[in-house]
Amino acid sequence: MGTNRLEAFSDGVIAIIITIMVLELKVPHEPSLAALRPLWAVLASYVLSFVNVGIYWNNHHHMLHVTHHVDGRILWANLHLLFWLSLVPFTTAWMGENHFASAPQAVYGVVLLMAGIAYLILQRAIIKREGTDSLLARAVGRDIKGKISPLAYIAAIPLAFVSPWLSGALYVGVAVMWLVPDRRIEHAIARERGAEAL
Amino acid sequence: MGTNRLEAFSDGVIAIIITIMVLELKVPHEPSLAALRPLWAVLASYVLSFVNVGIYWNNHHHMLHVTHHVDGRILWANLHLLFWLSLVPFTTAWMGENHFASAPQAVYGVVLLMAGIAYLILQRAIIKREGTDSLLARAVGRDIKGKISPLAYIAAIPLAFVSPWLSGALYVGVAVMWLVPDRRIEHAIARERGAEAL
Amino acid sequence: MGTNRLEAFSDGVIAIIITIMVLELKVPHEPSLAALRPLWAVLASYVLSFVNVGIYWNNHHHMLHVTHHVDGRILWANLHLLFWLSLVPFTTAWMGENHFASAPQAVYGVVLLMAGIAYLILQRAIIKREGTDSLLARAVGRDIKGKISPLAYIAAIPLAFVSPWLSGALYVGVAVMWLVPDRRIEHAIARERGAEAL
Amino acid sequence: MGTNRLEAFSDGVIAIIITIMVLELKVPHEPSLAALRPLWAVLASYVLSFVNVGIYWNNHHHMLHVTHHVDGRILWANLHLLFWLSLVPFTTAWMGENHFASAPQAVYGVVLLMAGIAYLILQRAIIKREGTDSLLARAVGRDIKGKISPLAYIAAIPLAFVSPWLSGALYVGVAVMWLVPDRRIEHAIARERGAEAL
Repeated sequence: MGTNRLEAFSDGVIAIIITIMVLELKVPHEPSLAALRPLWAVLASYVLSFVNVGIYWNNHHHMLHVTHHVDGRILWANLHLLFWLSLVPFTTAWMGENHFASAPQAVYGVVLLMAGIAYLILQRAIIKREGTDSLLARAVGRDIKGKISPLAYIAAIPLAFVSPWLSGALYVGVAVMWLVPDRRIEHAIARERGAEAL
Repeated sequence: MGTNRLEAFSDGVIAIIITIMVLELKVPHEPSLAALRPLWAVLASYVLSFVNVGIYWNNHHHMLHVTHHVDGRILWANLHLLFWLSLVPFTTAWMGENHFASAPQAVYGVVLLMAGIAYLILQRAIIKREGTDSLLARAVGRDIKGKISPLAYIAAIPLAFVSPWLSGALYVGVAVMWLVPDRRIEHAIARERGAEAL
Repeated sequence: MGTNRLEAFSDGVIAIIITIMVLELKVPHEPSLAALRPLWAVLASYVLSFVNVGIYWNNHHHMLHVTHHVDGRILWANLHLLFWLSLVPFTTAWMGENHFASAPQAVYGVVLLMAGIAYLILQRAIIKREGTDSLLARAVGRDIKGKISPLAYIAAIPLAFVSPWLSGALYVGVAVMWLVPDRRIEHAIARERGAEAL
Repeated sequence: MGTNRLEAFSDGVIAIIITIMVLELKVPHEPSLAALRPLWAVLASYVLSFVNVGIYWNNHHHMLHVTHHVDGRILWANLHLLFWLSLVPFTTAWMGENHFASAPQAVYGVVLLMAGIAYLILQRAIIKREGTDSLLARAVGRDIKGKISPLAYIAAIPLAFVSPWLSGALYVGVAVMWLVPDRRIEHAIARERGAEAL
């Protein structure tokens, strides 16, 4: 089975997730610029989650691009990832409405951690199907970023009860680290073509 | 006519159904972990329905994969299935908000039963179009799972008024039974290729 | 330009329209079957609109299937159709919540009338692009159904102030008339192939 | 990498943006035509934003049509555009509910301005990837429309505090200017084919 429909369905779910988050930006009743000020935290948490979900879409896009076949295991690993991502709007809203208080801040990290783990499970399921010699396997390599992120989240979760701002800084840091698109796959494709050209 | 657009539209509707269910997870006003506790039932019913809708998407994906042509009858049988699935968020929310009380629990079963019947009607419409000798017809075979599910739901509906927990156990049981992806179609494809290779 | 992306975007919008209508089915607070009874009108109006939007999707699917190229005029004619369809959830909810009172019933007809006209404009734009000798032009022919529907809506709108039930009967009648998929296009394709085979 | 999935994801997000705006049309409780009258401003702002988002979709469609490859920079430039478009429902609702008061009217312009800039950034990223000699680069040319729009928005934002109606007129004017589909790309394609035919 090809990857087309898996991509289409994932695109649909991710597009909805990214868009319903904006519904938390409740329209203020007063038509003054001052009425927008209390929204800063909701807007900031929206931006952070928009970037995070965008990173997942981006990496998902790259990963599926070098995937040739999907099986039942991959379909469910993908749904598992979408499940955790679907909880992002909830934690984003809770975090924004409470101006980044400790508990919401910690739960935000839990959901990101679970999504990160789900992504690794999906990656492993695809590599298992494609072969350890596949383009994806070589592109992923030791996958340092993919391992740093969960560690950062694991640190950020308890840290939220000490200083929500520090744990927030960790979330931002991980996002910035990923913002650079996953060149590994692009490079692996380029190397591949170079090798074939010889 | 090909199946592309039927798949795309179904993916869209299913993606939205699966995602709007999460909107029932109302953001608590207090920023404490204790404020999350009352949400357990809503979260549990969301997980159950996420898995159920995921199963439908999965099986739909497998079924359409071996479908070559669609006609008006198939288009409407598919819309009929989507109609019942579109009621899942409603029953899920009702069930979750009332901590799995009898009436919501029974109505949840009614909607799943109707969706199951709609799936069988769609399957029959496709087999009618593809021919009883088609890959799908042979893959489906006697379709034991497809017949056990409605029976389980028919049992679970009245049972909900005796013990909502027992009927809930039946819903979970059916979901677990289906969680194993429908290998019949994968196997039929494999056999097909084996036969062609001879 | 091909029709792929026009179809994909329309599918997305129609899938969302059809699914957000179900959000009007507000979850009752009491967990009893009696609590469902007041929802009958909302559910009935949902079913009617689900079928109506389904008919548009179906006919749109058939029409685009025999369209080869799109231009700016067609893109905007399509957006115009989607605009009127996007108002269907609003009128459906108003109608359902007021148990099919006169004013909502009339406005429901206005939106359906405008959507019907928008569909005819889109059809004309496509025929203009494809040529009056095209498969679509011949399939559409005199387009009796496409002309009866607006007339029925024009009758139903004032009628709603005399008897909302009669105008409701007209809406149901038009939907039933369309429920039979548009065989004209399927027949035209079949004839085409027959002619080519000679 | 091809443009397929980028288009599919953008279509999904834009379809949702365009459709959730209609949710602001709150269903009136009274079933009378008079109850619709207060909705005129919400409806008018919906129409304006529907057209604006439709213009973006339209131009995005044309631009991606002549794009052959996407890279990480383009993916993020596209997400950046979608981010600003995702704020349109918020500003539309605020503007409509406050009958086009000064502050919402100005903020509406800010979001349109940022979306316009994001579109130019995306266009530049694609031209950088495709080459300044590419079909897109030549089609865009001096891009007068793309430069007039931001200027109009920059004028409209402060103007909103003097006369919201004048700034509204500017928004309508820009939309009307764009409503004519971007023939430059269609013409460039036509010229290209003409040149190749020689």
